[in-house]
Amino acid sequence: MTMFIEKKTVSSDLAERMIQAAKERAAELGIAINVAIMDAGGNLLAFSRMDQAPLLSIDIAQDKAYTAAAFGRPTHEWYDVIKDKPALKTGIVHTKRLTVFGGGYPIRCGNDLAGGIGVSGGSTDQDQACCEAALSLINE
Amino acid sequence: MTMFIEKKTVSSDLAERMIQAAKERAAELGIAINVAIMDAGGNLLAFSRMDQAPLLSIDIAQDKAYTAAAFGRPTHEWYDVIKDKPALKTGIVHTKRLTVFGGGYPIRCGNDLAGGIGVSGGSTDQDQACCEAALSLINE
Amino acid sequence: MTMFIEKKTVSSDLAERMIQAAKERAAELGIAINVAIMDAGGNLLAFSRMDQAPLLSIDIAQDKAYTAAAFGRPTHEWYDVIKDKPALKTGIVHTKRLTVFGGGYPIRCGNDLAGGIGVSGGSTDQDQACCEAALSLINE
Amino acid sequence: MTMFIEKKTVSSDLAERMIQAAKERAAELGIAINVAIMDAGGNLLAFSRMDQAPLLSIDIAQDKAYTAAAFGRPTHEWYDVIKDKPALKTGIVHTKRLTVFGGGYPIRCGNDLAGGIGVSGGSTDQDQACCEAALSLINE
Repeated sequence: MTMFIEKKTVSSDLAERMIQAAKERAAELGIAINVAIMDAGGNLLAFSRMDQAPLLSIDIAQDKAYTAAAFGRPTHEWYDVIKDKPALKTGIVHTKRLTVFGGGYPIRCGNDLAGGIGVSGGSTDQDQACCEAALSLINE
Repeated sequence: MTMFIEKKTVSSDLAERMIQAAKERAAELGIAINVAIMDAGGNLLAFSRMDQAPLLSIDIAQDKAYTAAAFGRPTHEWYDVIKDKPALKTGIVHTKRLTVFGGGYPIRCGNDLAGGIGVSGGSTDQDQACCEAALSLINE
Repeated sequence: MTMFIEKKTVSSDLAERMIQAAKERAAELGIAINVAIMDAGGNLLAFSRMDQAPLLSIDIAQDKAYTAAAFGRPTHEWYDVIKDKPALKTGIVHTKRLTVFGGGYPIRCGNDLAGGIGVSGGSTDQDQACCEAALSLINE
Repeated sequence: MTMFIEKKTVSSDLAERMIQAAKERAAELGIAINVAIMDAGGNLLAFSRMDQAPLLSIDIAQDKAYTAAAFGRPTHEWYDVIKDKPALKTGIVHTKRLTVFGGGYPIRCGNDLAGGIGVSGGSTDQDQACCEAALSLINE
């Protein structure tokens, strides 16, 4: 019997550096964002709101990061999965914190799901670009 | 480093006068409304419910004001932004307090976002007319 | 009539630097903490959880920062105020988010209340020491 | 059979005037308060926050008004009722919105319970004085 399993999870240091990378990309795009990083347990690890970023996005960024960390799929892939399944499309969006539009990505250590990042404040494309800038740190 | 930034926020006096102006417009239109004013931090500053105004609108008025204060956009503009983006249209309406129909407006001091007003109780057009009556005090 | 009032609020830059200072002090003390910074409107501006910091403290740190930002008093002063007033002592602790033990401090720009910091993870004394290390950046 | 009963409830006009009276008393006392008026149904009728009043008191004022409107007793009388009954003292304070310290009063039309007023921002004595100033309008 395997009594314990090992989980990879994002470190506090990586979380801080991802947030800086996302904010630098946002500054290049001329937008102000909220960025959140969740660990493998779906718990808040780091968060930052840029000056002038919308208050409404504080929770959206965290919910995107949570959705990605808790399911292992970028949030922008959800809509394609549910769009032709009327029951899912109508119902699953009521799941607490589930976000079905772009701006949330899982953070992986190799194949292991180790957390999630969520960005909110720009357009969906811009939010995704900020996440990708942060994720590129991992493959460097 | 800039340690502190300066934000304009609606004064208590202006909030009271905006509420009176919105209610006067409602009386002219023959409707009974709930009116809420949020400050720049999205916190309730003033609220009034006219006799006979619907109870269901107590929270709607506050959520409209919050949405406008927390995102800087009139609530009636949201639907045009999301209507052709299926994932957003399906998903973003589940954001806590986000209201995507008319009756909420940001309150601006010049270009600065300084709060929000929300009205609920009449038709969308009537609610918007009450907000606009209140906002006209600022430009007088 | 004064239509708008001006409020100072913590900048995103200061928030980040305060968090780093609090974490450095925690490392010196040999503890792992959660740190949260709220702006003048009581909205989350920045957050960081150190590796090994307790999950239970994620919300406690945020609630301490909120209490300080929303009332303008360090959280460790609350108990002295309420301890000899039985009704307050019994009742006010049920206020949503109100924290009456140490580890939360208002952030002031001169006399203006501009936000709050909250730390949770160590003893009350240690949490306070981390806050104080962060606050010392403002007076340098 | 009596099919319907008649309830008195505070009018919107009285609510506004009570709020003004409470704020004038607060200004005399040199404090900044939040004031809320609930109708006979326990629903928010009017609210005002003075400039510089604590954000933490936004909900406390509303909860005091609700407690008074929903039970017909000033909030400062609760503690005497529960203090020698350990089960009540331990348990009833967990009732949602119930406030057991001063600053909330029922609004009566003759003997009928017609609503409640709640004030928060000063000491308990000061909050009560503001409520009493508002209530004195009814007996004039």
